[in-house]
Amino acid sequence: MKKWTNISLSIPDWLNTWVMSIPTHFPTQKKRMMLTIDLARINVQQGGGPFAAAVFESGSGKLIAPGVNWVVPGKSSLLHAEIMALALAEQSLGNYELAQFGSFELVTSVEPCCQCLGALIWAGVVSVVCGAHSEDAQAIGFEEGPRPADWIQELQKRGIAVTTGIMRPQSVEILQSYTGELYNSQLPGLNSND
Amino acid sequence: MKKWTNISLSIPDWLNTWVMSIPTHFPTQKKRMMLTIDLARINVQQGGGPFAAAVFESGSGKLIAPGVNWVVPGKSSLLHAEIMALALAEQSLGNYELAQFGSFELVTSVEPCCQCLGALIWAGVVSVVCGAHSEDAQAIGFEEGPRPADWIQELQKRGIAVTTGIMRPQSVEILQSYTGELYNSQLPGLNSND
Repeated sequence: MKKWTNISLSIPDWLNTWVMSIPTHFPTQKKRMMLTIDLARINVQQGGGPFAAAVFESGSGKLIAPGVNWVVPGKSSLLHAEIMALALAEQSLGNYELAQFGSFELVTSVEPCCQCLGALIWAGVVSVVCGAHSEDAQAIGFEEGPRPADWIQELQKRGIAVTTGIMRPQSVEILQSYTGELYNSQLPGLNSND
Repeated sequence: MKKWTNISLSIPDWLNTWVMSIPTHFPTQKKRMMLTIDLARINVQQGGGPFAAAVFESGSGKLIAPGVNWVVPGKSSLLHAEIMALALAEQSLGNYELAQFGSFELVTSVEPCCQCLGALIWAGVVSVVCGAHSEDAQAIGFEEGPRPADWIQELQKRGIAVTTGIMRPQSVEILQSYTGELYNSQLPGLNSND
């Protein structure tokens, strides 16, 4: 067995260039979602999945970290957009609990799958804002996995505010234009997601 | 915003040394769980959380990758035991879908939290074997997060076999001896898990 030094999850090279081209702060929910949807659009053009996310400082709207679905190019089923954004945010701030550093919001172009639902709770964001609904992702063949039917209430009772359907049509347009791989199709019902 | 090169999740240095000291193959379910519980015990001694996991080749029992809960030392809420084992397995095999390379089993000292439930599905293992029950982790203050009540059936209907309660008393002993941090306690109800 070879020696491991760490778990290394790749992020797209173009993400750093893109970050340099945008404002540093996004004061409104709509501006945060517009940015996230732009990011999803670029990601599809660059060979990634049709999903994007970003972590913002809740009050100021400062962008802390972006994320895109990079599962196929990055060769890791962890690399959903929300996971990338949350992991980069934790890496930037230097700890496993974002709540230690203030209040942070996760904005995601599509409602989170079961993996990302867990990840956003453990990362300690105080709010999540979603674009397209899960049914929109399912309509093109991506599965959300086993989530409780009342996952929104489950988040709310943990102190996490949830808003869904923000700029849904724009996010759906990106989903519907996607012609890339629907991965994890070898086991029955296993199509991964955002 | 600083430049990102990748997402780097640390693994404990001692894990490589430990791997050199054990057999390469674990043919039975019990041997696989014994190894996993040993790993959880060592992890607590080394400052990690009271949870461990490992990915094995289903038929031969070859150990593909171990994992431990390294959230606090590794400064990442992603670093649950199952996530570490699955990510190292994908990294070792070189792709995001383990099922492309054969049949793989995830053995975990405690039933998976919601984040890891999603991760094991998207990683493409064909079976999961659990030691302690979720209620055992909850009894010492760790939360499993929002999972469907029928999460076992949800796995089974996706073609993933589930066995729970293997060597439960030994895993519970490690949980009960744990005196370290119960992280993510700043938001109401937010205690992360394995």
